[in-house]
Amino acid sequence: MTKVNRIANQLRLLIRQEAYEDGRLPSELELARTMDSSRATIRQALAELETDGLITRKHGSGTFINRHVQGIQTRLEEVWDFDEMIRLAGYRASVRHLNLSLGPASEKIAAKLAIGSGHQVLETTNLFLADGEPVIYCTDYIPAHIVRHAYREEELHGPVYTFLKNRCEQEIDQNIADVIPVVAQRWLARLLGCPSGSALHFFEEIGFNRDGVPVLYSLEYYRPEFFSFKVIRKMMSLQMGGADE
Amino acid sequence: MTKVNRIANQLRLLIRQEAYEDGRLPSELELARTMDSSRATIRQALAELETDGLITRKHGSGTFINRHVQGIQTRLEEVWDFDEMIRLAGYRASVRHLNLSLGPASEKIAAKLAIGSGHQVLETTNLFLADGEPVIYCTDYIPAHIVRHAYREEELHGPVYTFLKNRCEQEIDQNIADVIPVVAQRWLARLLGCPSGSALHFFEEIGFNRDGVPVLYSLEYYRPEFFSFKVIRKMMSLQMGGADE
Repeated sequence: MTKVNRIANQLRLLIRQEAYEDGRLPSELELARTMDSSRATIRQALAELETDGLITRKHGSGTFINRHVQGIQTRLEEVWDFDEMIRLAGYRASVRHLNLSLGPASEKIAAKLAIGSGHQVLETTNLFLADGEPVIYCTDYIPAHIVRHAYREEELHGPVYTFLKNRCEQEIDQNIADVIPVVAQRWLARLLGCPSGSALHFFEEIGFNRDGVPVLYSLEYYRPEFFSFKVIRKMMSLQMGGADE
Repeated sequence: MTKVNRIANQLRLLIRQEAYEDGRLPSELELARTMDSSRATIRQALAELETDGLITRKHGSGTFINRHVQGIQTRLEEVWDFDEMIRLAGYRASVRHLNLSLGPASEKIAAKLAIGSGHQVLETTNLFLADGEPVIYCTDYIPAHIVRHAYREEELHGPVYTFLKNRCEQEIDQNIADVIPVVAQRWLARLLGCPSGSALHFFEEIGFNRDGVPVLYSLEYYRPEFFSFKVIRKMMSLQMGGADE
């Protein structure tokens, strides 16, 4: 994560916490001072927030928060470590480790991770809890060959991003998630403590590093009562013409 | 849409959900039993998937899933008119109009549209079909006061973006959708022609114009066999430190 990303994330959080009550951000200079950063970094971070639709910069009059975006709880376009995500939603986060194994990749998993089928893959399954209640069931697959340093098994008992960073020297840049509504099967309902047949979010997700190489494949089930996933969508059209600018 | 197409799409979804972990489909006989279908239908559905390159049938040894081939791609960050979206997915698009009314906004709808409760709202409900099969059920709410020009009722029998543009002089800039997995209630299952209790995408969506004013509130149900919604997610973190630039 770059310094710019980090500043942008701090600003995202401040906006979400309604730190700027008048709907307007301080000047670049002021932000640079309070956030202990250069003005160039602030400017780039603001450009990132503007691209995300979070703010609008009006030349000569300042930087304005788009209020309709401000209220959004969890943006689907953002990936947080599960424990951070649970804390941001206002709960105490904990994790129950379910399974860890090392073995040959199935054909499907190999394809997702762009490795040869039969290559070794680390598989870890964890249940994440909010105030002691199971809310996310997740299985992660990591190609074994990217692991560069010795590690203890416990490091895979929880969110994997720290493990990827510290033990694989890999940082995820972008995830592509397939968002699918599913009905809880009995085994999953029992683990998540929800009625069998109730609706769940299912994300099938691939994490890519900066070189666009897949380094993580995840299957995630979320209880929808605990997370509201919002997405900002842009209007598209194939139609030509119209009374446009 | 034929029975064969439907079975083929159900199989597509099962494959995407990793229902067949060993990369291999059950036998035709077994599929016919579990999917409550004839063996001839299953065989034709498999032929369709094979034509799509999704599976390979090897005589004598079984049916194998081709991992790298992807199904329908729809980016969640993009909004298309429903008929365009259906055409993009490779189907013939049509629409069945269900209901149109003008009346006072409920408190909830008024809040979503940022108007006073009791203000007049246009409400239109339409069912969108792909190759004659219902795939999207949608109710749109438009504040009546934004309508500027006379219109015929038929202009609200379908996607509303053209209506907003031509009759309200409003262009939607950004939508914010709350993406929620739901289970099809009986009334909706009957309309969408899917089993009651099956999982559906539910989007609760607000469309904003360029000034950030809400001009459209929509409730949309999608059959997940027909649309694969992918989203690109960026890694976020509040954690400091690390070997950074």
